[in-house]
Amino acid sequence: MKNRVKNIFNAIEKRIDAIVLKNSTYPYVDGNFFYATGLETGIFEGSIAVLHPDGNMDLLISELEAESAKKADANLHVYTSKENRDNIFKKMSSPLKNIGVNFKAIVYSDFCKLKDMCPKSTFVDVSDGFTNVRLVKDDLEIQLIKQSCNIADAVMEKIPDLLFEEMHEYEIAAKIDYLMQKKGADRPAFDTISSFGKNTAEPHYSHGHTQLKKGDFALFDFGASFRRYNSDTTRTFVFGKASQRQKEMYKTVLEAQKIGFDIIRSGVKACDVHNAVSSYIDTTQFKGRFIHSTGHSLGMAVHDGPGFSSDSDIVLKENMVLTVEPGVYISGLGGVRIEDDILVKKEGIELLTISPRELIEI
Amino acid sequence: MKNRVKNIFNAIEKRIDAIVLKNSTYPYVDGNFFYATGLETGIFEGSIAVLHPDGNMDLLISELEAESAKKADANLHVYTSKENRDNIFKKMSSPLKNIGVNFKAIVYSDFCKLKDMCPKSTFVDVSDGFTNVRLVKDDLEIQLIKQSCNIADAVMEKIPDLLFEEMHEYEIAAKIDYLMQKKGADRPAFDTISSFGKNTAEPHYSHGHTQLKKGDFALFDFGASFRRYNSDTTRTFVFGKASQRQKEMYKTVLEAQKIGFDIIRSGVKACDVHNAVSSYIDTTQFKGRFIHSTGHSLGMAVHDGPGFSSDSDIVLKENMVLTVEPGVYISGLGGVRIEDDILVKKEGIELLTISPRELIEI
Repeated sequence: MKNRVKNIFNAIEKRIDAIVLKNSTYPYVDGNFFYATGLETGIFEGSIAVLHPDGNMDLLISELEAESAKKADANLHVYTSKENRDNIFKKMSSPLKNIGVNFKAIVYSDFCKLKDMCPKSTFVDVSDGFTNVRLVKDDLEIQLIKQSCNIADAVMEKIPDLLFEEMHEYEIAAKIDYLMQKKGADRPAFDTISSFGKNTAEPHYSHGHTQLKKGDFALFDFGASFRRYNSDTTRTFVFGKASQRQKEMYKTVLEAQKIGFDIIRSGVKACDVHNAVSSYIDTTQFKGRFIHSTGHSLGMAVHDGPGFSSDSDIVLKENMVLTVEPGVYISGLGGVRIEDDILVKKEGIELLTISPRELIEI
Repeated sequence: MKNRVKNIFNAIEKRIDAIVLKNSTYPYVDGNFFYATGLETGIFEGSIAVLHPDGNMDLLISELEAESAKKADANLHVYTSKENRDNIFKKMSSPLKNIGVNFKAIVYSDFCKLKDMCPKSTFVDVSDGFTNVRLVKDDLEIQLIKQSCNIADAVMEKIPDLLFEEMHEYEIAAKIDYLMQKKGADRPAFDTISSFGKNTAEPHYSHGHTQLKKGDFALFDFGASFRRYNSDTTRTFVFGKASQRQKEMYKTVLEAQKIGFDIIRSGVKACDVHNAVSSYIDTTQFKGRFIHSTGHSLGMAVHDGPGFSSDSDIVLKENMVLTVEPGVYISGLGGVRIEDDILVKKEGIELLTISPRELIEI
């Protein structure tokens, strides 16, 4: 993980002597703590990581997680109480003049404590440095994301066989989560979306007690979390024979996704990908029905930084991982979304999720 | 929810004109946003709630969650962009001189933005006010926690029938999560702990690839999340005939829990409960083997505030909900923990989880 730490320092313009990551109580725990340490298990509430420009790091961790922390390539300092932790930290931080802190993840009360403990130091926001470095995945990250994608694909493939008339949305959601965990996922990457009929028109729906009927769209949007790395894929099926209108919606979204795939390569602006996909949909009868961005970056967080949206200012680089997920939504009728995870390459993309994309009538 | 908001203001000593809750991106979303609004669905990244002393509230929410937000008894302000949100907020906050903010949940970058938007205001930390009010549950909260406990109990009861020799820990964990969701849980309350053999000696273990062997302890610690409220219960079984040593460990923990149950009532100091439980264990052959606190408060968060620990400064009040979970751990051999959720009453407790507590040999 030393290279990751060095990369972060290289991505920060201002001169800093160290970066301090301070976790609060769950859920206010900084994902970058795990990015920098590579620790796959443990929660590390209250822990502090001090990252140094040469890639070395000091970890202040409680006795309860001393065992888990041993897997990190770091100088471990096991504290017995918060007072003990703060005393170790004060000693360690006293020579540091300029300290990098992730202003987007540290809670204000912890920031106040940091200032008290380091009264002579200046604090610099390093949140953008972390975001930018994490956008480009290293080999280990790509390998873990691929394993996470394989789990999601294997489960997606089974869904058509699991659906039956009058089944509830929550039943199939529970089954999807179960199958992912049986196949090695640590947990679902996020609350699994399993929506039927007109509920498919709400992109933020998760699942409820609606029952499956003939002719319904059935939309599944889920991912696996595997050793802290996530996948995120969506397929929309028709339960029974698809109507003409459903076929047209599906064809439009499939074509929109293909347009996205075709443009993506290293050097392209992320906003141009969204604009191409969105403009295409606006040339069809479904103008104005694509109501979200085309995709987001994916990794340790499901929303891992900027993505394909009209206001995105990033330029694609090799080894970024993002979702491509156009959709068309008609209130009262339903929606279609097709979502895949892609790895940006010099000359195009590598598809990380590979479930069939053609319309499946069940 | 107006009463909840009024209670929060009553719990804050300093005079404030309003409380502002500002959510950042997931997971930096303040649980108090959901406590104050009562909203059961939605994520509300970037949303702002402005709570007023008379119990009224203004909610600034994005178009995507406008539908979900309608369920709140609040003045809704749907914003179209972050700039639009900030403009609405600036207008709304300009008359506010003293603003309450949850310093333990707002990220520092958001706090800086708040200060910029309200240059003439003073900010007051109201985190303790929220914590103290939330410790005592209202009727709706108790009802939801009870439903969540019922789900966990129903699943716990099935576990002995689901275990077989050489089964992997992750398999039964996946099954537990599946059954909870089939019974109405929205998701597991936390990563389900399913540990076999010597792994049961690690209180923070979750689950892995260890296989179940004859004579193993098998420990299950899980809970359901139901409409944002959580349960949290643990049982330890023996797979096969229990050894004398295992029986002694079990008996000690069971007796320790009973000692806890017997002391708890409104008016008792939380630290005294822990000290009684802990002292009892220290009179047995398992002295020094109880290595964590006796329990934590439970509600919208699994760790919902102070609990039964030696440094806890709370006095128990009617309608607090906490866990009682003594344990005994012997490295290399295994551990026993028995955990139940209780409601504090005037004269004692009401048990919210009711799975059998006597040792079960499978």
